[in-house]
Amino acid sequence: MATDVLDVIRTKRDGGRLSDEQVRFFVEGYTAGTIADEQAAALCMAILLRDMAPDELATWTQAMIDSGERLDLSSVARPTVDKHSTGGVGDKVSLVLAPLVAACGAAVPQLSGRGLGHTGGTLDKLEAIPGWQATLRTERVVGQLRDVGAVICAASETLCPADRKLYALRDVTATVEAIPLIASSIMSKKIAEGTESLVLDVKVGSGAFLPELDRARRLAETMVSLGQAHGVRTVALITDMESPLGRACGNGLEVTESVETLRGGGPTDLVEVTLALAREMVVLAGLGGPGGPDTPDIPGADPAAALADGRAFAVWDAMIRAQGGDPSARLALAPVQHEVTAPTGGYLRRLDARAVGVAVWRLGAGRSRKEDPVSPTAGALCVRKPGDRVAAGEPVLVLHADDPARLDGALAALGGAIEVGPEPPEPRPLIVDRIA
Amino acid sequence: MATDVLDVIRTKRDGGRLSDEQVRFFVEGYTAGTIADEQAAALCMAILLRDMAPDELATWTQAMIDSGERLDLSSVARPTVDKHSTGGVGDKVSLVLAPLVAACGAAVPQLSGRGLGHTGGTLDKLEAIPGWQATLRTERVVGQLRDVGAVICAASETLCPADRKLYALRDVTATVEAIPLIASSIMSKKIAEGTESLVLDVKVGSGAFLPELDRARRLAETMVSLGQAHGVRTVALITDMESPLGRACGNGLEVTESVETLRGGGPTDLVEVTLALAREMVVLAGLGGPGGPDTPDIPGADPAAALADGRAFAVWDAMIRAQGGDPSARLALAPVQHEVTAPTGGYLRRLDARAVGVAVWRLGAGRSRKEDPVSPTAGALCVRKPGDRVAAGEPVLVLHADDPARLDGALAALGGAIEVGPEPPEPRPLIVDRIA
Repeated sequence: MATDVLDVIRTKRDGGRLSDEQVRFFVEGYTAGTIADEQAAALCMAILLRDMAPDELATWTQAMIDSGERLDLSSVARPTVDKHSTGGVGDKVSLVLAPLVAACGAAVPQLSGRGLGHTGGTLDKLEAIPGWQATLRTERVVGQLRDVGAVICAASETLCPADRKLYALRDVTATVEAIPLIASSIMSKKIAEGTESLVLDVKVGSGAFLPELDRARRLAETMVSLGQAHGVRTVALITDMESPLGRACGNGLEVTESVETLRGGGPTDLVEVTLALAREMVVLAGLGGPGGPDTPDIPGADPAAALADGRAFAVWDAMIRAQGGDPSARLALAPVQHEVTAPTGGYLRRLDARAVGVAVWRLGAGRSRKEDPVSPTAGALCVRKPGDRVAAGEPVLVLHADDPARLDGALAALGGAIEVGPEPPEPRPLIVDRIA
Repeated sequence: MATDVLDVIRTKRDGGRLSDEQVRFFVEGYTAGTIADEQAAALCMAILLRDMAPDELATWTQAMIDSGERLDLSSVARPTVDKHSTGGVGDKVSLVLAPLVAACGAAVPQLSGRGLGHTGGTLDKLEAIPGWQATLRTERVVGQLRDVGAVICAASETLCPADRKLYALRDVTATVEAIPLIASSIMSKKIAEGTESLVLDVKVGSGAFLPELDRARRLAETMVSLGQAHGVRTVALITDMESPLGRACGNGLEVTESVETLRGGGPTDLVEVTLALAREMVVLAGLGGPGGPDTPDIPGADPAAALADGRAFAVWDAMIRAQGGDPSARLALAPVQHEVTAPTGGYLRRLDARAVGVAVWRLGAGRSRKEDPVSPTAGALCVRKPGDRVAAGEPVLVLHADDPARLDGALAALGGAIEVGPEPPEPRPLIVDRIA
């Protein structure tokens, strides 16, 4: 055994391709505990620096899927389609998208995680709703998909246990950023979840996990290939994360903004990204028309109409109730609100997504360790967005805090994050690229 | 704390140079147990693939020295000089060299390790002598250096504890082969041992730890620079390890051959390498003449004379007795002896060092895990050496085994190791290069 795991590490260390047998030996052995953390850490670092070939990564991903159970959604009559985002600041798209796409006729099985770091987690956001439960038994997940058409819940412990262990290890060994490991971590869970199609929202820009476009594109291409290799129809959009998406950042604040959007309102950038992803999902689910993603012609399958006519909100209402939540409850507001103002007048040229994300995280909306609690009320509202006019001394951001002692750290994170100038900024496209 | 160790790993992962503070933080934290094995493994793999700058490595080595105690040899009047070999098959040079150089007027503090893998350990060899003790208290080490002039013993647990922990980790994570880690592991122990000068025998060829000349030369250069940076006069010889050194391979057999050599006999290749190293040591110790290493002109400082006239043997005798051994004891022979014969007649063109090393290891002379015992009697005698004539069916090797069941594995290792042809092989220089 000792010899074999050393052979696996050496092969990757020296730039070689792991055989299918080596991949399975490693993933199974690490999940079972016969391969030690330090051996897995050495291999992860070697993968980060040496990369993996596409077929090697497909086998790796398959081994991760095979480490646990796979959800059986065959009893769901509607076509299944899911979405995954690599995470952004103010990125509450999932909350709107799952009920919206269900309202268009698909079933959306969105098994999600919690946030770690400066981008929030979907479950953390929904937990701001009184009574809402993230944990469901598998029968309830499938039942809710049949009855409501959308479910957002925690992935079961039995789904991809190899990923659970590897992710925790990567987090403490500076090997999170390896593209093959990111891609296999995301895709193994989505494939094990049983969805037939998948749309990926790969963020690019300062607030993204991989800020550079070339790396974001490589990740998108890697994940699309992996999905296709495993029989899951997969499309990726690369979308801008240079400034926060929408206006609200923080768990409860994002729920409130999502509800506004589901009622046909909401910030234009959030609506644009949500509709672009929704159209891709509708088409992948076979509900779109021959004219491509922008012209679904099956009755009821137009996402813009489903937002406008209240059908998306109706699914949201049913989805939250099915998981014990009260969709009509007014969410609490944080006791402390602090304005961050424009130093001079002019156009807001930049509002840095990462800085806002770190500020909101320091206010208590995010966690440092996976066992930390998060605040449902802490966060920030972007009262100005890039391109808006602002006068000197007018607020750009309003910080929401439970504890005024947290403001200093948040304000420190915002140093240099706000840029006001005499000229409006160059417009930035929200949808940067599409990989299919 | 968690942030800092991730910063250290990320810096090296991304090809950067660790600051002095980062190096010390890591080495101290890992020794103290506040940095986990998996974090150290990720860093070792990053170092292997990204390398270290000379000054970075000097700080790393200093931090390893500072993790433990440093021997104080100031009470030893003679100049101190030691030798380290990267390990070879049949490499019993230390056994001859320590008493030989002491006989020339220096003090040789040889703190050694045990063998792991296909090259034997000096302590394992000496333990074939009835009564001989590897473990000495520090006062006895210093006392023996004063009284006898030579000591070969186990390094104390308090010497470089960081290296002890890192070496065990590298062994299970396929990061042994990193040149900066090899160099700092060897040099930290030798510097902590307190010697004033050091000669390195860096092996090259099939039986060597780093078979390729360019890597062996890089290791030698790295170690010579490190020694000089720490005020230890250091010279390296790169010597051939394409076939076993001398004729005897295996613990007790190598002791017997060493004694023959100390009595003025012994195989010519062993004598040549030993004298070359001895001359370097004598010069570094300030006992050589102005004409360079080949012409020591201080009376009594000529190593060839000290071998021929019995003075080296007298020091050996005193050194073994001082550690409880009986130098006149006849060493036991293994009960099973098996001849490996030449398939055709001609010249022995090749006798592969690595294959012989693995065969001897499988016969029981070496260990797989550091807690395994080794056999004092198992081994092999090379009755023919490359360049010798041999008739078809005549023995080339005689394998010595305690258990005939071990012969099959040893013979399997020797497949292709012996090459006989009509022409003699090209002569190979034993001393390939000198780095100072």
